[in-house]
Amino acid sequence: MKIFFTIHPSLIMLLLLDFGGTKLSAALARSGAKTWLAQRRFFTPANADGSCEYAKMLELAKSLLAEAGESAATIGVSFGGPVDAERGVVRLSHHVPGWENIPLADWLQSEFDAPAAIGNDANVAALGEFCFGAGQGCRNLLYVTVSTGIGGGWILDGRPYAGEEGMAGEIGHTLVQPDGLPCVCGRRGCLEAEACGPGIANRARLYLAKSGRRGERLLQLAEGNPEAITAKLVSQAAAAGDEFSRMVLLESAQRLGLGLANAINLMNPDCVILGGGVTKSGELWWQTVRQTANANTLPEISAHIIPAAFSDDAPLWGAMALAQNILV
Amino acid sequence: MKIFFTIHPSLIMLLLLDFGGTKLSAALARSGAKTWLAQRRFFTPANADGSCEYAKMLELAKSLLAEAGESAATIGVSFGGPVDAERGVVRLSHHVPGWENIPLADWLQSEFDAPAAIGNDANVAALGEFCFGAGQGCRNLLYVTVSTGIGGGWILDGRPYAGEEGMAGEIGHTLVQPDGLPCVCGRRGCLEAEACGPGIANRARLYLAKSGRRGERLLQLAEGNPEAITAKLVSQAAAAGDEFSRMVLLESAQRLGLGLANAINLMNPDCVILGGGVTKSGELWWQTVRQTANANTLPEISAHIIPAAFSDDAPLWGAMALAQNILV
Repeated sequence: MKIFFTIHPSLIMLLLLDFGGTKLSAALARSGAKTWLAQRRFFTPANADGSCEYAKMLELAKSLLAEAGESAATIGVSFGGPVDAERGVVRLSHHVPGWENIPLADWLQSEFDAPAAIGNDANVAALGEFCFGAGQGCRNLLYVTVSTGIGGGWILDGRPYAGEEGMAGEIGHTLVQPDGLPCVCGRRGCLEAEACGPGIANRARLYLAKSGRRGERLLQLAEGNPEAITAKLVSQAAAAGDEFSRMVLLESAQRLGLGLANAINLMNPDCVILGGGVTKSGELWWQTVRQTANANTLPEISAHIIPAAFSDDAPLWGAMALAQNILV
Repeated sequence: MKIFFTIHPSLIMLLLLDFGGTKLSAALARSGAKTWLAQRRFFTPANADGSCEYAKMLELAKSLLAEAGESAATIGVSFGGPVDAERGVVRLSHHVPGWENIPLADWLQSEFDAPAAIGNDANVAALGEFCFGAGQGCRNLLYVTVSTGIGGGWILDGRPYAGEEGMAGEIGHTLVQPDGLPCVCGRRGCLEAEACGPGIANRARLYLAKSGRRGERLLQLAEGNPEAITAKLVSQAAAAGDEFSRMVLLESAQRLGLGLANAINLMNPDCVILGGGVTKSGELWWQTVRQTANANTLPEISAHIIPAAFSDDAPLWGAMALAQNILV
């Protein structure tokens, strides 16, 4: 059921922009198409600020349009931070200074003489999966990215739901373990701290410090340096049969399952889509997430927990839905 | 912002029915009115089944209509259990057997020759508060009743949101304390088990059994019988300065605050409305709920936690919104 999205008949040019935490992406696509015409990326340096990111993104977009020899009819934008989607204003970036209260949609509209729609990256990624990816045919879906952080976005009754201040979907900061692992938000036991990639590595280091000789295989993979442990190494060691790493991975997956069960009991979606690097942690991880979520969901509620169709590109696909929707 | 509800101009007769956990209520009201014309209640005996409840409700409704000398133009129904609102079918009752897959809206329509709309009681109560009560002017609200159980209902983007299977709002079965108090659903540490009325009494009994001489004042109020402790006695003792009871009440309120914070981070409502008997537990309880919720909510998110306007009648007011909406 696609209530939100309707394909515009004419194959007009769309400019799609993704301001991510560590990189900028720009792409051109025809409305209704299944691929980009062209795409360009830029990895932002650590000392970037908002005006530098904006200038670089303009450069990427203008070079794409110049090469295509066309102008954009509409612009769809994914932004990695809280936005006021209705007014087209970025509220702030958690990664880069200088994005406070920036009227990004208006700026882009003036620059390219084309209407622009913006959204928060997790909300926009949810829209991308809903319109073009794993959520096609769903009516109520939760998209969750499990990566260096954990964020989410909602489609409810076939429409994007962003919340009163555009902040809906912050499942990463729901509590799953009182007095659990420390979170970047300053609290403890948030889902993000307990189940994201760095959280899995933290859990491994914590248990290594406690357990003495256990976890030797994981330490070998990390060349003896606990600080070099990553979620990827933990899942590699677990897949190779390392009991310590299996236990670490399993606990993190259980916490995620609990967090999803809370969201499922609260909102009764038909579908939960999981994306992000941590979802590549293997079958044990997926099984544990699903089993824990099911065991903690009311029996009258069923929700399918499925992998995302897109990886890094989900926000660009969502930006495409935004850009097309301007036309409807 | 009232998107869902529009007052119908003509003052036609509405029949409003509330199938509650322990009682049946029927009322008559003119559309657009601020009070009932008449109301009648029946407390269901412990051995009641679905057909007995249905027959008794027909009796209440028909006697009201006979006395008014009119027929009903539309019927709004609140049901205390999962319903398929779109098809007008009751899925089951958790309190009373014999309600499995009952096409209640069709039955009522045949009986009274008038269209009927039904909804789950917590969802319908949310609608009542949104249209006529504490939620007027809100756009995104969560209604939570804290009583013998804990249930909830959503209004999102100005519309009732019931979820894929009509089960949205089950905040009572979100987890707030792993390995916490036992819940009627079979798990431990659900918000309901930790913070509803019987949960407060359970916590008091548990700590009494552990603490020896503490809690004497509460035991006095319960005439020496721990089984006679209720949430009301706990809040009375707390208000009278009993430290033990204050601690019990405070912990329960903290758990509720955590559960609300999770919902607020996940959905970013502008308003959370609390109803039910436990909300009469005094200022300490309210302060603790609000402080805990605020402390566990992301700084970019603000939500007002306010008392419900209606007590037992919220479902009937919601039924009024349903009945009026049939006309729109």
